[in-house]
Order: sequence, then C-alpha cells, then structure tokens
Amino acid sequence: MFKIDERLTSTSIIITDLALSRVFFKNEQNYPWFILIPRKQNVTEIHELLPKERETLINEISKISNFVKNYFNPEKLNVGALGNIVPQLHIHIVGRNNTDPLWPHSIWQPEYKQSPYPQNVLDNLIQSLKRDLSCEIS
Amino acid sequence: MFKIDERLTSTSIIITDLALSRVFFKNEQNYPWFILIPRKQNVTEIHELLPKERETLINEISKISNFVKNYFNPEKLNVGALGNIVPQLHIHIVGRNNTDPLWPHSIWQPEYKQSPYPQNVLDNLIQSLKRDLSCEIS
Repeated sequence: MFKIDERLTSTSIIITDLALSRVFFKNEQNYPWFILIPRKQNVTEIHELLPKERETLINEISKISNFVKNYFNPEKLNVGALGNIVPQLHIHIVGRNNTDPLWPHSIWQPEYKQSPYPQNVLDNLIQSLKRDLSCEIS
Repeated sequence: MFKIDERLTSTSIIITDLALSRVFFKNEQNYPWFILIPRKQNVTEIHELLPKERETLINEISKISNFVKNYFNPEKLNVGALGNIVPQLHIHIVGRNNTDPLWPHSIWQPEYKQSPYPQNVLDNLIQSLKRDLSCEIS
C-alpha cells in the first residue's frame, strides 16, 4: 500500500498522477516548485528503483521541468533528491530567478521559510496548472 | 568541442568517462562527493538532453549512487542539478551522514567551505576510487 509522508503533502497540493510519480505543487509564491513522488513503498534513493522505473522517472522529471520552463519562464531550474529529513524518495523541481529571495543559493537552506500564495491566487493557479499540465503531457 | 567550466574542475579530480558523463570526485573530506558532467556542449538543464541521453544519465547517476553507497556507506545520498552559479549541466551525488557538519541541511549553502583531504590521503583515495569504480561499472 502506497503512502506519502505527510511532511511532504502538508504544504503542497496534488496536481496529477504520471505513470510512476504523483505530482505535487508547493504552496510557495517565491518559487514555482513541483515535487515528484514515485508511487513505490520503501524507496529512498533513485538507484533503488528498477532500471525501467528510473527511465520513467527521468522522463517525468523532464516533462515537469519543461512545463515549469514554459509556464513560469524561470532563468534556471534546480532539480534535487535530498531526503535528509524526509527519507521517502521525492524529487524537487524548482524554477529560479535572479530576483528571488535566495538567489544564487539553493532553496534547501535552514533559513528557508514558506511563503504561501493568497488563497484565491492559489486556487486559480492550481486550476490552471491542472488544465495546462494535462494538455502538455498528454 | 566539449569544454568544462573550470569552476567545476578546479576543486575536483577526474576519475573516468562513462558513456555520457565525465566523472569527477570533489576534494572534500567532509562528504564523499561526485560530480557527473554530460559531455555535451551548451546544455544547462536535464530536459534539454535527448531522451536516450536522459536515460543514460539516470543510469549513470544510479551507478555512481550505488558505488558511493557501497564504498563510503553513507546514511543518505543527496542528488542535485542546480547550476545557479555555473549553468553548465552537472549533477552532484553526495553521501551524507548524521555526523557531518551540515546535517540534516543540504550541502548547497552559502556557508559551505571546502575542506580538502591531506594530499597523501587524496592520492591514495583517487587511486582506489579509479580502480574500484572501473571494476564495479564494467
């Protein structure tokens, strides 16, 4: 039975399921921030996936990266699988700009504080992301 | 003509070439730290690689991850492609332990300072890594 650590979902909204991964969008207005969580139990590292699953994962990372680039037009993408605090395998895909609060440093810093969207902005954005992502990846 | 940004190589030692990536080991005694650099010019993001190259990349990430796990026995791996400062596509694969100086935070922090190995330790380690990695991946 596939379960997601609630520390990953408590600040994010589910967008869709791809072949391998569940796609979340983080409620964080300073950075367009997606999280991919492969629907496999007890996997903490990329190399623990089966070869075929790893190939699916990198294609899903690419699809979401491409989507973030087109939708939000960031200067750079940051992609990372860390898991020091929440070991369940999850991949961050984050758009970065030289005007964002932590540029040029990583968003994985002790001083990072979540900055949520206003609720109505978030609601509209999630609706739009769901629609546009389903068009782009279909 | 394939060139590597010298900010990536100035603190690292070349170990080998895989099918797609050149493999470097960072001279950093606090963390076992590899860097994979795909031998492609003018690529800054994973999704800019061709589909076949992306699959090769994730398999090379897995090979090096597995090697780091077996050789250094870290508790967790951190894998990341950032490039805010050096945009040339490069993937960090770093072994982490709960006794290391930055745990549980990422190693991508402004306060990170390189801590090089003593030269004789480094020389022996590089020799051993080259030998063992070539056995493991062949």
